[in-house]
Amino acid sequence: MPSTDPRPPAGPRAPHADAGLLSPGRAGSAAEEATGDAAYLRAMLDAEAALTRAQAAVGLAPAAAAEAVTAAAAEHGRYDARDLALRARSGGNPVIPLVADLTAAVAERDPDAAPYVHRGATSQDIADTAAMLVASRTLAAVLADLDETAGALAGLAARHRDTPMPGRTLTQHAVPTTFGLKAAGWRSLVLDARDRLAAVRAALPAQLGGAAGTLAAFGAFAESAGVRASDGLAARLTAAYAAETGLAEPVLPWHTLRTPVADLAGALALTAGALGKIAADVLVLSRTDVGEVAEGRGGGSSAMPHKANPVRATLIAAAARQVPALASVLYASLAAEDERPAGAWHAEWQPLRECLRLTGGAARDAAGLAAGLRVDPRRMAENLAATGGLVTTERLAAVLAAEIGRSEARQALDRASRRAVEEGIGLERALAEEPAVAAAPAAGRLRDLADPAAYTGFAAALVDRALARAPERSGGRNENRNENRNENRDEEGTP
Amino acid sequence: MPSTDPRPPAGPRAPHADAGLLSPGRAGSAAEEATGDAAYLRAMLDAEAALTRAQAAVGLAPAAAAEAVTAAAAEHGRYDARDLALRARSGGNPVIPLVADLTAAVAERDPDAAPYVHRGATSQDIADTAAMLVASRTLAAVLADLDETAGALAGLAARHRDTPMPGRTLTQHAVPTTFGLKAAGWRSLVLDARDRLAAVRAALPAQLGGAAGTLAAFGAFAESAGVRASDGLAARLTAAYAAETGLAEPVLPWHTLRTPVADLAGALALTAGALGKIAADVLVLSRTDVGEVAEGRGGGSSAMPHKANPVRATLIAAAARQVPALASVLYASLAAEDERPAGAWHAEWQPLRECLRLTGGAARDAAGLAAGLRVDPRRMAENLAATGGLVTTERLAAVLAAEIGRSEARQALDRASRRAVEEGIGLERALAEEPAVAAAPAAGRLRDLADPAAYTGFAAALVDRALARAPERSGGRNENRNENRNENRDEEGTP
Amino acid sequence: MPSTDPRPPAGPRAPHADAGLLSPGRAGSAAEEATGDAAYLRAMLDAEAALTRAQAAVGLAPAAAAEAVTAAAAEHGRYDARDLALRARSGGNPVIPLVADLTAAVAERDPDAAPYVHRGATSQDIADTAAMLVASRTLAAVLADLDETAGALAGLAARHRDTPMPGRTLTQHAVPTTFGLKAAGWRSLVLDARDRLAAVRAALPAQLGGAAGTLAAFGAFAESAGVRASDGLAARLTAAYAAETGLAEPVLPWHTLRTPVADLAGALALTAGALGKIAADVLVLSRTDVGEVAEGRGGGSSAMPHKANPVRATLIAAAARQVPALASVLYASLAAEDERPAGAWHAEWQPLRECLRLTGGAARDAAGLAAGLRVDPRRMAENLAATGGLVTTERLAAVLAAEIGRSEARQALDRASRRAVEEGIGLERALAEEPAVAAAPAAGRLRDLADPAAYTGFAAALVDRALARAPERSGGRNENRNENRNENRDEEGTP
Amino acid sequence: MPSTDPRPPAGPRAPHADAGLLSPGRAGSAAEEATGDAAYLRAMLDAEAALTRAQAAVGLAPAAAAEAVTAAAAEHGRYDARDLALRARSGGNPVIPLVADLTAAVAERDPDAAPYVHRGATSQDIADTAAMLVASRTLAAVLADLDETAGALAGLAARHRDTPMPGRTLTQHAVPTTFGLKAAGWRSLVLDARDRLAAVRAALPAQLGGAAGTLAAFGAFAESAGVRASDGLAARLTAAYAAETGLAEPVLPWHTLRTPVADLAGALALTAGALGKIAADVLVLSRTDVGEVAEGRGGGSSAMPHKANPVRATLIAAAARQVPALASVLYASLAAEDERPAGAWHAEWQPLRECLRLTGGAARDAAGLAAGLRVDPRRMAENLAATGGLVTTERLAAVLAAEIGRSEARQALDRASRRAVEEGIGLERALAEEPAVAAAPAAGRLRDLADPAAYTGFAAALVDRALARAPERSGGRNENRNENRNENRDEEGTP
Repeated sequence: MPSTDPRPPAGPRAPHADAGLLSPGRAGSAAEEATGDAAYLRAMLDAEAALTRAQAAVGLAPAAAAEAVTAAAAEHGRYDARDLALRARSGGNPVIPLVADLTAAVAERDPDAAPYVHRGATSQDIADTAAMLVASRTLAAVLADLDETAGALAGLAARHRDTPMPGRTLTQHAVPTTFGLKAAGWRSLVLDARDRLAAVRAALPAQLGGAAGTLAAFGAFAESAGVRASDGLAARLTAAYAAETGLAEPVLPWHTLRTPVADLAGALALTAGALGKIAADVLVLSRTDVGEVAEGRGGGSSAMPHKANPVRATLIAAAARQVPALASVLYASLAAEDERPAGAWHAEWQPLRECLRLTGGAARDAAGLAAGLRVDPRRMAENLAATGGLVTTERLAAVLAAEIGRSEARQALDRASRRAVEEGIGLERALAEEPAVAAAPAAGRLRDLADPAAYTGFAAALVDRALARAPERSGGRNENRNENRNENRDEEGTP
Repeated sequence: MPSTDPRPPAGPRAPHADAGLLSPGRAGSAAEEATGDAAYLRAMLDAEAALTRAQAAVGLAPAAAAEAVTAAAAEHGRYDARDLALRARSGGNPVIPLVADLTAAVAERDPDAAPYVHRGATSQDIADTAAMLVASRTLAAVLADLDETAGALAGLAARHRDTPMPGRTLTQHAVPTTFGLKAAGWRSLVLDARDRLAAVRAALPAQLGGAAGTLAAFGAFAESAGVRASDGLAARLTAAYAAETGLAEPVLPWHTLRTPVADLAGALALTAGALGKIAADVLVLSRTDVGEVAEGRGGGSSAMPHKANPVRATLIAAAARQVPALASVLYASLAAEDERPAGAWHAEWQPLRECLRLTGGAARDAAGLAAGLRVDPRRMAENLAATGGLVTTERLAAVLAAEIGRSEARQALDRASRRAVEEGIGLERALAEEPAVAAAPAAGRLRDLADPAAYTGFAAALVDRALARAPERSGGRNENRNENRNENRDEEGTP
Repeated sequence: MPSTDPRPPAGPRAPHADAGLLSPGRAGSAAEEATGDAAYLRAMLDAEAALTRAQAAVGLAPAAAAEAVTAAAAEHGRYDARDLALRARSGGNPVIPLVADLTAAVAERDPDAAPYVHRGATSQDIADTAAMLVASRTLAAVLADLDETAGALAGLAARHRDTPMPGRTLTQHAVPTTFGLKAAGWRSLVLDARDRLAAVRAALPAQLGGAAGTLAAFGAFAESAGVRASDGLAARLTAAYAAETGLAEPVLPWHTLRTPVADLAGALALTAGALGKIAADVLVLSRTDVGEVAEGRGGGSSAMPHKANPVRATLIAAAARQVPALASVLYASLAAEDERPAGAWHAEWQPLRECLRLTGGAARDAAGLAAGLRVDPRRMAENLAATGGLVTTERLAAVLAAEIGRSEARQALDRASRRAVEEGIGLERALAEEPAVAAAPAAGRLRDLADPAAYTGFAAALVDRALARAPERSGGRNENRNENRNENRDEEGTP
Repeated sequence: MPSTDPRPPAGPRAPHADAGLLSPGRAGSAAEEATGDAAYLRAMLDAEAALTRAQAAVGLAPAAAAEAVTAAAAEHGRYDARDLALRARSGGNPVIPLVADLTAAVAERDPDAAPYVHRGATSQDIADTAAMLVASRTLAAVLADLDETAGALAGLAARHRDTPMPGRTLTQHAVPTTFGLKAAGWRSLVLDARDRLAAVRAALPAQLGGAAGTLAAFGAFAESAGVRASDGLAARLTAAYAAETGLAEPVLPWHTLRTPVADLAGALALTAGALGKIAADVLVLSRTDVGEVAEGRGGGSSAMPHKANPVRATLIAAAARQVPALASVLYASLAAEDERPAGAWHAEWQPLRECLRLTGGAARDAAGLAAGLRVDPRRMAENLAATGGLVTTERLAAVLAAEIGRSEARQALDRASRRAVEEGIGLERALAEEPAVAAAPAAGRLRDLADPAAYTGFAAALVDRALARAPERSGGRNENRNENRNENRDEEGTP
């Protein structure tokens, strides 16, 4: 007798859960795993542990407490995301119940250490720091995929530097271009995205402000512990906390100064859009009616097994349609009242996660798309020829004007263009039958002048110029800091 | 030795999954469960079973096949959302692998029935029908919560019909109003939302078009089966399918005629915004500095245990900030090219789910908020008095103008207002010391005329008028159809 | 004798002004004129005049005052939009300086009438009523264009009811469809938009609440004037005001109950999206590489005079990309705090205008597009043939399975499809060379069975069904009320 | 002698025009003038003139042609924005008719120069370059206003470095903060915005690609003119064009590589949001019920002359609600198909203008707001005292725990807090009556320990740290280039 309840792979509490069923764009990607509830939970625990270690570093907590909290925070299996989600309702955020669970776990190890859990912090300190850790870890995967994409596109650009194809504007064939220039443009956008994401990632700050951003509790602890609560204590503590998390050190607590979130929003929306441009072009060029490119491995159809759909491009396009709107929520949350807003902050959580995850999935698909793209120069040439050379009139007008005068040249071209279309004879032949043209020096090289494939302008030079650009190294300083610290902790285990 | 991997409540595949950790607004709500991956999966299976039954109903499939498919589709435990999510990547949607799994399940029961699984349909037929089923089931819960909210608000409006409080405009005290009028206005918005949602829900259509919206395969089946493929076959089949799903019958396949999704977007955005208005007011009125209302059970703070935060209003406000942007993605997807777009359709899935879920969570919180709201008429009176009667100048100007002339009245009021503020003596006394006023008939009832609590205008009459409004019954026709059919199936089980 | 044309400034103050240079989509349209500053200014004056007349109707103002205000409000040339825009800065809205100017104008005619200008109202009463008048007037033009569009599309659908063309899904040729079905689908969306807009338009309410929504001042006036200020006075006054403006009567003042604006947002976003779907299809089908349709009069290019760009579709597509985001601002403004919010209301003005204007421009272009669209059935047939009959495999599989068994049929089809593609011989011939097929009854009608043009399924029946739908008449009741009143006033002139 | 002022139409065609009536936030601002139709028109003319000069610089045009085009482009009075807007409809953009008018103007001066107008360019080259010029000129004004705002905020932060006020979180009083820290945080956001805008501005590129981004026509001209069309010609021409416009030199034509527009979107959304944060705080703090700050010159109300509304904050808040949605349109336009998209490009124009203009207006208002803000330390102190010292429990818990043990301290504090609230006696007195506390060393300094004003933590140190930050000088290189060239042209006049 079968169960009557379909459920994601989990126990009795699973019916609520999302396992990616509606999100093929990100299913199975590194970004998905880096942004799941488990990843956020782990990042919150990392933040709590880092906080106690930082207090130990500046004399506000005993070293043993730091050790105990770090160890208890590493017992990831103790903490249940669903249970925390439900208990988060009473206070409005998941840190409150997590602190209770972590405190209990620490108390089991070392009762004296328990009071040092979350000491002096507010929920937002932990939640924001965790979000930055998640962002940093996700962006590491995104950047790797962008690098891979850029590399594959560089190969396409070099390989097809001189492969002519129709340039298309406002849906119509315009003058020729080359596929290499198109691929070089795609790469240029990917590098733009990469540079901005890397810069944003390097600056992602830890969050520490205490109840209302004054860090006052730490002064009270110092006061009560006989530590000198000089003005510098807050700075030293914040620096130690940033170092322990691997994130950048903020100038001020940024509970309601949300530049880091807005910068993420912008860089992610740019990235999704940049990949969306590639997808938009692939979707046009792989149309049955165009056929100039194909995804290496197209997707099947449930109704028509013979179809090869451009699935990756489709999923990237779907992401590019969602991220800008989600980013707009993040930008709107900048206008946050007071020392902690009632709504604007909470409205950031899911959209930021979704921006990370959609963009990460799109980057993964873009890397696959770029690596596997099949280009059909023959079909490009056929399509280019379909307008009978009319796409070269710009060139012919210039050359003929110099030889037979502007007015005469224009009239000859107009008549020849009309005949080329109406009689289907091609521009070259129609022009050759124009007396003025036949008498001009250009007559001898009409084939070349009216050959679309020979009129790609500076496309090759532009490809070379674009390929000379390397990614910026701006993200270098902090690039790998934040993983290392916490990854090491994990590997070391705990005393 | 503890595990080093924090994970949502599940087995080895869980790290990807979301269990609501970042979404306290919907955690544990009926809407959450109605929109989880399990619910979508079940709705897809319901759609597949309904499709085979509909074909049996019009003679395109044997009754035994309909029974076998229905039975296999009811074995919810067989289908694994995560596995399907991963396999969805190759074709870009989860229906393709689901059809494979369902076909295998049917084949186990009745090999002859297997070819009838998904027969003649396209993935979008199933995915769209499932989305409408999910929407319908979720909206049932949302409507119930809205009804409950409206009921509680009616009570508040009636109870506080005459409770004066400051009307506030552009952050400043304006003229007085009553809390009853405020609550009646809230209810009015909730009824607006309720009426629109109910109307949209009643019209949610099943989707059936086949590969490209012509239902052609069904004609071919008829042709090959000797069934008369008259023009009416498509209409009969679609009607049977709609009846089996409990959804409305569409005039045309709507693969790229997305009015149903846009209508959902609009009604959900209106609902989230309507609840957001209530939250916005509660957030102002429960400020420490205002203190006129309080949530029945405020939320704690991790740093300041004495605080009672307006958590429900905060979570509603967070939802109201997200839904409009998500709805904009749905509206933008109307502009979908071809017979199935590459991206615009896929971009609907997650935003529609999130709109349903955020709005559903907000409706649940609004019901709780309205039911538990504590109103403090004393504090309202104190705040109203804080401006010393200046909020009644509008009334005094009218009355005094009639007695001592417009110009004289205005001058007396200007002087008295200034003294009232500067000397802190209240408008009544300051006016009484104005000779022209002291000599006027109004002098005898200055206390009343300058009493803010006596200047609530037509607030009470407006409350009565607003409370006379009942919810529309527009949604009646289809309101419970779609649950019934499939719920019954579930209860009946299958032979 | 003043000019009767309220107009934005010319001359030295003009550098600030917009004349549509960046908005070719709406330039010169009726919607543009109905939404310009002059139109808003006029609507505000109409609202002020209606307010005084309404007060006269219920005994709160002398008839002479109503006449004087109405006459002064009709002197449109007196009021300078630019001057008002600049003076609006001190109070944050243009009504405040307009009241000053209108009062001065009235005082010139009849000093005793001057105090009755704007009496008892708040700026929002006038601004909101004016916005509803502008919306109503603009929608009249939009509805007319939608009706025209739907009519032209009905013609196309009927004319091409049986014109086969490739159905395209995820950019690939799927099974055939007909252009008639595509056009019928477009019309269906246009009727959806039309019905919703008409319903919203019929319900657009006048706004009247006074300083904080209690209408208290009118009670004070009644009190001072000896009019019986019964509870019914507010209702009578509101009804009279609604009647004078031609708008619907609201149940409550809706200063912060913004359903009317949200309903407009939704209906306009649906309309823009519906037209955007048409544009998206036209843009695909008029590609040089597809060539199945062309705009009646394509647009030129500054660089390539031979190109004929789908300009109307492009401009519609541009509108469809903007309106959803603008609508999201309007939905977000539902969450408005207090009795008048500080920002949410002000944020509505320009986006609402832009939604009206973009949608109105798109409707105008859609009407032109639909009326002039050139359809090329020959090119459709060529494109349909380009896949060599593979788009009919769905049908062949059904027919052959019935004759030679499912498994045998599938194998034969797979082989034949492969050969058809690889050898370029077409599916019909490849199938004919399959022994099992050659021996089957179907062999005699392979040409027909593999003919894409003969496999359009129920397209024709669906066209007939769709064309049977007529627009709803829901908007009838109020449809022309609001123009009439004020238009008549204008025609009558003033005493 | 023509007027030198390009201006939108006056007179009979004006009804379409906007003069800012619905936009008090930007009316009269420098950003408004820099973004009006006249400014765009002038920028397009500047771009055309720069293009011909650049061609002269590389030998593709005679110097006399450059002079004639430059002179004709400077006759701003010749070009009529409204007329161009209407004629833009046939081709979908205003450059096409403008080229016709400019060519006619040049031909009047020098018929031989006429063919050099717009030679080799596409409309998008001119429209994009013009948009970048407009952005650059507008941002100059925005940056100046941000600098002024930051300066005024620095003064407030320094002046109120130690002014205590309630820190507010989730609408409730939390622990104390200082107004100086709040102002320092505002300044920090303004500097973030300033730095990003300056960096984006410095990188705004000229656009030059020709018909499809290959610059091919210039090669044809070189070919026909005997100029050596080496690969370097395109680079030299582009560099010369960038220099003539004062914009940055692009690596590639960016017709569909829209990073510059996306970067503008992000920086403007951040700026609007940063200013929106200030406005959000001012709106809370200037509430009648809070009264801690007031705008220097509040706005009047049409209904309640005694009110002083926070008008500037309201208008800034309204801008902050609109810009994120408009920016989302710009981000979405990144996904632009082909060499010129049919819709995505056109959808950028108005939203980019509106983002510039709304942000510019908000910056102007922020400067005024910051300069005139009145701060009321007395009211801050009163509000801070309103919770009877409860906001210091965090500190007391720390100090007492050290003296009497954690558990005892917590119990004493819980009891005392309850009594302080219920009996209204204040925390200090309630604690003093706790025996354990009375016996502790802290008893002697309870007044200080329970004094909210003495518990501002590290606020002052944070202010000092924040004020040490200076704006980045990243924008230096190009900062004033683009004005200079064209301004000089204007001043010089033409031969």
